[in-house]
Amino acid sequence: MAAAADGYDDDDAMVADVFARDCSSRRVVENIAGKWGLLALAALHDGSYRFNALRRRVEGVSEKMLAQTLQGLERDGLVHRDVHTTIPPHVEYSLTPFGERVAAKIVDLMELVQSEVNSGRRPPSPDSG
Amino acid sequence: MAAAADGYDDDDAMVADVFARDCSSRRVVENIAGKWGLLALAALHDGSYRFNALRRRVEGVSEKMLAQTLQGLERDGLVHRDVHTTIPPHVEYSLTPFGERVAAKIVDLMELVQSEVNSGRRPPSPDSG
Repeated sequence: MAAAADGYDDDDAMVADVFARDCSSRRVVENIAGKWGLLALAALHDGSYRFNALRRRVEGVSEKMLAQTLQGLERDGLVHRDVHTTIPPHVEYSLTPFGERVAAKIVDLMELVQSEVNSGRRPPSPDSG
Repeated sequence: MAAAADGYDDDDAMVADVFARDCSSRRVVENIAGKWGLLALAALHDGSYRFNALRRRVEGVSEKMLAQTLQGLERDGLVHRDVHTTIPPHVEYSLTPFGERVAAKIVDLMELVQSEVNSGRRPPSPDSG
């Protein structure tokens, strides 16, 4: 470990720390973090979705990326995958209680961004070069 | 546009919508998203940082990724880059007022994830295959 000049201690080693590379909270954050994770969770906050409906809601996501995203979110206990044995069978995705709490925070964040864009304070950046 | 079977209207076209591929709020969300954006904003919520201190704080980020992340956040008006003309000169990153509000929501979200991990309800997923 390189000597850090500005007083950097890690005496909180027993406590979850999203900044620590190997903390399991960091892994959960990484699964939530991508734009598809954020958008899927925000969409599911409105209610459960079938795969294709969710894919239409989250514009631009590929089938593969959405499947991967949902798998990660399911593994981390945020999303519940419910297989209905109807004919034809269908699969529905919904939030777990933990997922609900996370999604509520994400929707909060997105509403803040949307209201900032609506207010016109956020100019569209023209220099996308 | 493909016919959507389940009543999907877009009469909110004038309002920012993070789910819409071409909405400028979506672009802002995409820059915030990504683990490095989220972690950098959460770190800056504690106060301003020089580049290298921020890089140590956000464990595992490469110099290049952090520079790109900060550039995107600066372009979207979340991060302020302050060049001090000392000898040697140094550059400090801090949050703009909009960045402060976004970062507060992100810290909220991360605290939720951390407390869930601390509570032991979130089992470390062993099957990382």
